[in-house]
Amino acid sequence: MPKQGRFITFEGGEGTGKSTQVKRLAAALEAKKIATEVTREPGGSPGAEEIRNLVLTGDPARWNPLTEALLFYAARADHTERKIKPTLADGKWVICDRYSDSSYAYQGGGRGLARETVRRIEAIAIDDFKPDLTLILDMPVEIGLKRSIARQGNTETRFEEMDVAFHERMRKTFLDIARRNPDRCVVVPADREVDEVADAIWQTVKKRFRLR
Amino acid sequence: MPKQGRFITFEGGEGTGKSTQVKRLAAALEAKKIATEVTREPGGSPGAEEIRNLVLTGDPARWNPLTEALLFYAARADHTERKIKPTLADGKWVICDRYSDSSYAYQGGGRGLARETVRRIEAIAIDDFKPDLTLILDMPVEIGLKRSIARQGNTETRFEEMDVAFHERMRKTFLDIARRNPDRCVVVPADREVDEVADAIWQTVKKRFRLR
Ligand SMILES: Nc1ncnc2c1ncn2[C@@H]1O[C@H](COP(=O)(O)OP(=O)(O)O)[C@@H](O)[C@H]1O
Ligand SMILES: Nc1ncnc2c1ncn2[C@@H]1O[C@H](COP(=O)(O)OP(=O)(O)O)[C@@H](O)[C@H]1O
Ligand SMILES: [Mg+2]
Ligand SMILES: [Mg+2]
Repeated sequence: MPKQGRFITFEGGEGTGKSTQVKRLAAALEAKKIATEVTREPGGSPGAEEIRNLVLTGDPARWNPLTEALLFYAARADHTERKIKPTLADGKWVICDRYSDSSYAYQGGGRGLARETVRRIEAIAIDDFKPDLTLILDMPVEIGLKRSIARQGNTETRFEEMDVAFHERMRKTFLDIARRNPDRCVVVPADREVDEVADAIWQTVKKRFRLR
Repeated sequence: MPKQGRFITFEGGEGTGKSTQVKRLAAALEAKKIATEVTREPGGSPGAEEIRNLVLTGDPARWNPLTEALLFYAARADHTERKIKPTLADGKWVICDRYSDSSYAYQGGGRGLARETVRRIEAIAIDDFKPDLTLILDMPVEIGLKRSIARQGNTETRFEEMDVAFHERMRKTFLDIARRNPDRCVVVPADREVDEVADAIWQTVKKRFRLR
């Protein structure tokens, strides 16, 4: 039986460079002959992508935060059982662009759903499944939002139109998650050149998983 | 402040006459000058109807039962907070075609999700909110399925195509719910003329709520 792969998630606000760095890390791992699958949330499996289409279109405020959290975890349960776990069991590494911490940040910190409520839904949807490593890309909210708005081909402005205070609460939640989970999370200062951020991430990953 | 309205749900398998009897009961209540709103699940509020469109179209087996239960309760949380509770607070009575017991029957009994898991999701989504009265329409599975297939304009065959054994498990679950919740639930034998069933329901409702 092949060795179980590793599960790495990227978290952080809009425009902090998650999608950019996901690709860089996947390329670095592949260069080390580590078979790697890139995935993302919401979505990532056929059933979850259908839910993604529902949640990322239309008026963002049409559901209360509780309904929204249940929808995101419905998608996450499918993605986790049908894609992430089987891929890891195949011995591949999985890098995911956003995962469960984003629900704490968005529906929790951002929209005010109690952390304990998110925790209870998480416990039902994915049980005690956790990433081996979570990279939290951090930078001042305004910079990320500017980058995100300037980004080419950005059609999903679902959460990006919300106000700066909302994104400040999200940032605070991510940093709080990092503090509470020091064994799993590493905060990466992301207001730097792409190469610098990629290098910091690569050093972290090499050290964490003892790669040469 | 007006008196809080009553919340009555209809449950039971496909083709047992729920939608028919919902209308009859609403008419009987209106005839007694009791303002009544009819609603249904999945759906019943704008946000929940969007989730209904997702869950009632496409391949029924594309999600596992856990994801499906989270989706139904996401819709139910919205419907309960935004439609059912405000309508009851207005002093109106609400009659709902299917509610939470259907999740125990479909995702639980039918698809094998543990009852305890349904209960945990229910506790998060609607807390301890319960109908004042649940009418469980009961009849042999084959009769209901035949009626349901013969029904005019039936485009939502989402669950109806599943096998008879599945529906037998659902029926058993509904009867089990009635046994566990004798104060809330009444089983109505439904393999009779529409008028006879309507009359049995009306006698039950009159007695339960002390109507003259
Ligand atoms: N380190 C960086 N410096 C400047 N711009 C960047 C940097 N990283 C990413 N970008 C650009 O910022 C925008 C948002 O990056 P992206 O990776 O899509 O962020 P996210 O996925 O976190 O929203 C993109 O246009 C991207 O090219
Ligand atoms: N008591 C009854 N006897 C015979 N047919 C009935 C009776 N009640 C309903 N029907 C018919 O059976 C079909 C299913 O009834 P419906 O009320 O839509 O059931 P449900 O909503 O429980 O699926 C409809 O065509 C309806 O007209
Ligand atoms: Mg991105
Ligand atoms: Mg019906």
